[in-house]
Amino acid sequence: MLVVKLGGAAGIEPGPLVKDLASYLNGAASGSEGKVAREVVLVHGGSSAADELSLALGRPPRHYVSPSGVKSRYTDRAALEVLLMACAGRLNKLLVEALQREGVNALGLSGLDGRLLTGPRKTAVKAVLDGRTVLIRDDYSGRLEKVNVPLLRLLLSAGYTPVISSLALSYDGEALNLDADRVAAGVACALKADSLVFLTNVPGLLSDPADSRSLIARIPAGKLGAFQDVAKGRMKKKLLAAAEAIAGGVNRVIIADARRPQPLTMALAGEGTVIAA
Amino acid sequence: MLVVKLGGAAGIEPGPLVKDLASYLNGAASGSEGKVAREVVLVHGGSSAADELSLALGRPPRHYVSPSGVKSRYTDRAALEVLLMACAGRLNKLLVEALQREGVNALGLSGLDGRLLTGPRKTAVKAVLDGRTVLIRDDYSGRLEKVNVPLLRLLLSAGYTPVISSLALSYDGEALNLDADRVAAGVACALKADSLVFLTNVPGLLSDPADSRSLIARIPAGKLGAFQDVAKGRMKKKLLAAAEAIAGGVNRVIIADARRPQPLTMALAGEGTVIAA
Repeated sequence: MLVVKLGGAAGIEPGPLVKDLASYLNGAASGSEGKVAREVVLVHGGSSAADELSLALGRPPRHYVSPSGVKSRYTDRAALEVLLMACAGRLNKLLVEALQREGVNALGLSGLDGRLLTGPRKTAVKAVLDGRTVLIRDDYSGRLEKVNVPLLRLLLSAGYTPVISSLALSYDGEALNLDADRVAAGVACALKADSLVFLTNVPGLLSDPADSRSLIARIPAGKLGAFQDVAKGRMKKKLLAAAEAIAGGVNRVIIADARRPQPLTMALAGEGTVIAA
Repeated sequence: MLVVKLGGAAGIEPGPLVKDLASYLNGAASGSEGKVAREVVLVHGGSSAADELSLALGRPPRHYVSPSGVKSRYTDRAALEVLLMACAGRLNKLLVEALQREGVNALGLSGLDGRLLTGPRKTAVKAVLDGRTVLIRDDYSGRLEKVNVPLLRLLLSAGYTPVISSLALSYDGEALNLDADRVAAGVACALKADSLVFLTNVPGLLSDPADSRSLIARIPAGKLGAFQDVAKGRMKKKLLAAAEAIAGGVNRVIIADARRPQPLTMALAGEGTVIAA
């Protein structure tokens, strides 16, 4: 079992992964596993698409910074509906369309569907917003606690490839925005996946973000904490998600480049940052 | 088995149906059927939501009229992506959210997902567009030919209530816009549904569209053709869809008002236009 997360940052096109995933699922990528059916769950982000749509609708996206310095999307109800449109709607279905065209029987779901992803809403977030420290009470984001594993198994065993957008349902029945990296980690743990691959717009964890040749190729799982200070911005959340995945029993997490041909094949061959025991 | 189509025209709010559907599925609506699990598939439109989003994005929706006088949405690729956002994204997930909040384990799908709805694309449409007769070649609409019944049965038997937006996949792997009324009819036939209920923004077929008291309460299935001339606008497509459903083995088609409390209960009790053998 393999979980792949395709990033939603600017510069990432789904084309290379879609073709590569089709080869992988047809067993043509390596050909070494014989007739064993390969199973993949794809999780996707959508930050760039959501930003674009927000801007087109005349409501520029807003972000807040937590006291610990982590930047998050400020998701009031209007912003949440933008995510439903841009991520659960457009991006999810364009991925399904592209995969279907390559012969993969993709089936798109948000975390709301069939209670696929559920968890508590963050009801009050202390944050710096527009330069002021405030208590945000109308943010619809949350934390993943439960993955509906029987639903994923039902679909996988019937031959479908689930494509998941990282919206969720709160315990009070509200749609929530979740961090897609952590959703991918949660899904990988719940499915006892062997590998989790993050495909993004950089070659992996770089010791100098300005220098793509400064790739850190291997991180022993036990030393992951020490690399948190090396990571900047979005990469911090990826390392956090990687740590959650490793702690949850995933053997190997790979952070690799989505923007080249055969991005999945290359990642599985070890091109990128490989985090393993 | 019951198929319900919730219209997407202006003035239709999902609230009344959502509450009523939850009662129905809990067996509380009539209470007469004992422990037999009730199964419902919900199909929804989205014309008003798509129009709103198109306008907000500065791309007013366009329509064309076929030589036979039927008005259709002109769905070029940009308009198709608006449908993915407004219908498969926002509307579908808001319905799922509302149903989940009422305890219904709803699961939203577009026709692309798992090849739920497939058919041929209309590759060239002769039409009157913006006052000129033209051959439209960049329209992404089509006709439903196949419903993935095993997928719907898989979900229904696991306790999920499918909520379907009327996008589809062409045989060439392109996303297509389908008429939601005819999708509902096609799904009802494929599932051998007993009843098909269209919930819309009028009380049923009116002999005088300006007079809501002119409701035609019963139409014998065999005489449906004679009523096509009474129907105007969207109602023409509903009668066409009703005829397809009856021809495909559905016992009873009801066209009723979505805008009052308990719209499903009222429709099933015969309030509206009932078309049956």
